[in-house]
Amino acid sequence: MAAQELDRVGSLPGAPIHSYAFKHYSGYVTNDEHLGKALFYWFFEAMEKPDEKPLVLWLNGGPGCSSVGFGQAQELGPFLVKKDVPELELNPYAWNHAANLLFLDSPAGVGFSYTNTSFEIDPPGDNSTAHGSYAFLVRWFQRFPQHKMKEFYIAGESYAGHYIPQLANVIVEENKKASKENYINFKGILIGNAYMDGDTDLQGIVDSAWHHAIISDTLYSAFLKSCDFSMEILSPECDAALDEFSVLYKLIDIYSLYTPYCDLGYPALNASSSLKIGQTNGRVSKFDLLKIPMGFDPCTQTYATEYLNREDVQRALHANTTGVSYPYVLCRNSINAVWKDSDMTVVPIVKKLAEEGLRIWIFSGDTDGRIPTTSTRYTLKKLGLPIKEDWSPWFTHKQVGGWSVVYDGLTFVTVRGAGHMVPTSLPEQALQLFKHFLANQNLPSKPF
Amino acid sequence: MAAQELDRVGSLPGAPIHSYAFKHYSGYVTNDEHLGKALFYWFFEAMEKPDEKPLVLWLNGGPGCSSVGFGQAQELGPFLVKKDVPELELNPYAWNHAANLLFLDSPAGVGFSYTNTSFEIDPPGDNSTAHGSYAFLVRWFQRFPQHKMKEFYIAGESYAGHYIPQLANVIVEENKKASKENYINFKGILIGNAYMDGDTDLQGIVDSAWHHAIISDTLYSAFLKSCDFSMEILSPECDAALDEFSVLYKLIDIYSLYTPYCDLGYPALNASSSLKIGQTNGRVSKFDLLKIPMGFDPCTQTYATEYLNREDVQRALHANTTGVSYPYVLCRNSINAVWKDSDMTVVPIVKKLAEEGLRIWIFSGDTDGRIPTTSTRYTLKKLGLPIKEDWSPWFTHKQVGGWSVVYDGLTFVTVRGAGHMVPTSLPEQALQLFKHFLANQNLPSKPF
Repeated sequence: MAAQELDRVGSLPGAPIHSYAFKHYSGYVTNDEHLGKALFYWFFEAMEKPDEKPLVLWLNGGPGCSSVGFGQAQELGPFLVKKDVPELELNPYAWNHAANLLFLDSPAGVGFSYTNTSFEIDPPGDNSTAHGSYAFLVRWFQRFPQHKMKEFYIAGESYAGHYIPQLANVIVEENKKASKENYINFKGILIGNAYMDGDTDLQGIVDSAWHHAIISDTLYSAFLKSCDFSMEILSPECDAALDEFSVLYKLIDIYSLYTPYCDLGYPALNASSSLKIGQTNGRVSKFDLLKIPMGFDPCTQTYATEYLNREDVQRALHANTTGVSYPYVLCRNSINAVWKDSDMTVVPIVKKLAEEGLRIWIFSGDTDGRIPTTSTRYTLKKLGLPIKEDWSPWFTHKQVGGWSVVYDGLTFVTVRGAGHMVPTSLPEQALQLFKHFLANQNLPSKPF
Repeated sequence: MAAQELDRVGSLPGAPIHSYAFKHYSGYVTNDEHLGKALFYWFFEAMEKPDEKPLVLWLNGGPGCSSVGFGQAQELGPFLVKKDVPELELNPYAWNHAANLLFLDSPAGVGFSYTNTSFEIDPPGDNSTAHGSYAFLVRWFQRFPQHKMKEFYIAGESYAGHYIPQLANVIVEENKKASKENYINFKGILIGNAYMDGDTDLQGIVDSAWHHAIISDTLYSAFLKSCDFSMEILSPECDAALDEFSVLYKLIDIYSLYTPYCDLGYPALNASSSLKIGQTNGRVSKFDLLKIPMGFDPCTQTYATEYLNREDVQRALHANTTGVSYPYVLCRNSINAVWKDSDMTVVPIVKKLAEEGLRIWIFSGDTDGRIPTTSTRYTLKKLGLPIKEDWSPWFTHKQVGGWSVVYDGLTFVTVRGAGHMVPTSLPEQALQLFKHFLANQNLPSKPF
């Protein structure tokens, strides 16, 4: 327990002091001694009765975005960054109301996680990330043995639509041969606005953009005529259409179609400006287009970045203990740019996980333009699972929270009016969804 | 001027007293002595320099809904109903900032307008409404001769997508043979979320509902398989799909997809519950389906109805002077139910008006499910006008207000994040749009 106690977070600068009772811990777990990789986590015990609650790992996407800076500080963590100041406030809808909550900056190079090996020698990718996260988990459970027998779930959003099924698959396979000591009591996954399938995701983005009145008839016709999204390399005409598309999405927030940009300046820094990252010979491959960093909120990113760059905060969090030469950033674009190992689809893995009997919930904020509900619906169709309970409304008090479909092996839930970062858009609905997922219960089918 | 002065509204109960300087008038204009029809209007002079401002007639749709109760009291009028009490407050974005503003309850039987003839003897319809409104205008100008030489425009929304082109056409034709005295200085029309074409409107409603994650794959497949919306009478299978569709729209507000219902109770009174009005032999014709009363906001309708039923208010407004036996209602469903004369499309009229050189602007709040932007885009495609300036963003300060296309003869503007009642959803953007329409200027193409 000594190592665990060393990670205990004491007084946290700019955080409310007296209004919470849960313990929290943060620090590094060495991931690969040889390559000099260490992964940073921030762990929160459940608000009440942590011993009786499950353990949930939360992962943000990108690739390259920090779960500590997004998930914890801007979405579902107990301490959200305040507006205008690099300080924190308690989140009344924090997910540690329902679970012990573990945020992991993954892979090495993301957020506070670091690698002493350059990306050229050891490029990050899907496979190494899954195995790196698994190695982290095994060691983290050694440090926190009291959580090892708890039910374990993985949740996340966006490019974590890749991370989560891939990590889940590693856990399932390793569990088959693991000693009792290293066995993980793994039960299920929960993924929001998930990037899961290159083909259907991009088709859904384009179709949805027309039906949400964002692109012109002319541009949509160009897409229909020149784009075959099942090809790995797209035609030059399709490239040109996608270029035009990315220009429009520098004007509005692709992650939340109907909300204004934050008034920190115009044009706001928008993740879609990186559409052109990773060009090969002047041509943009479909894969590059899908790697746009996701989960980017221009209204809170400045405060979160400032807060996590405070020296006193890093000291309190046991972060950046090796004194890296660069500042903390929410999304490391250089990781995104060299990310070459990415499954074109995780549909077969998701299907396998469903057959293994894992609990799988997919949710979708329906005002996201990055991975629109339309994309996810196309992807689910590709999965081809039989429907057990067709499309029904679910409720938050007297209002329709969205709609859900229960497939044999997978539950799909939409969240009405939420953007890409569902817990940021509609925190009450997100917590409700999370609790029902953990309880393995359908959401309320009637107003209450 | 005596008749005019008799219509002047003095002290108006429950309205702010000292904070406005414009004059306003209301009362009846006899529309048809023989049939005992009288139309009720409420006219507001422009806030400043009324002599230099144009005159704009505003019409709500339905058929059967009151322009006084919707347009004036809930959308763009100077006096909006307050929350929770039947009183009024000044609207900072009232359209009489830019024009003299005339609200008309049309046809007879709507709002305070009445008829002494039963609907069975004289059923209301498109043609009689257009001619009735024209007759009203001629007589109203006789009562208010000082406004006769002003530029005259007609604006409105929803089923006024029928009323406005039809009335415009009557004015254009009558102007050709009118004496100088009866000539109307008519310049253009402005229509929001306009019901214009039965075929494309219904196809757009269905397609948009799938892409906005409201209907299931199963129901959408049923639509695609069984519905031919170009037919006047739909197949029984298509009827059944539309029945299922209407059930979903009893749960969320079809006029504003992402806003909650007002908490006055659940399920809220929703206009879509009248989907089945006007069945013929157990079959629902396409026309009946399109006649859903539009422009219905459950959050303000109660206050507006209560306010306009106050006896002191009616006295002050010179309304209900004949003491009809029924209360004022926002939408008279019995009118809707007997409405048999409805053009299946007004596309040819709109085309003709464009050729006549009238200014025509169509706008569309893009989160409306009743006449979605998708429907209007399908309809505009049917018009087949050449594009002069393709799809471009327009701005409200630093934010994208929406997108616009300038056709040869018609300008189309979307309003990002607005529902069916655009001035209610986004009042600042709506007033901006109105001012640019009157000035015949493109909306700002850059942030400002």
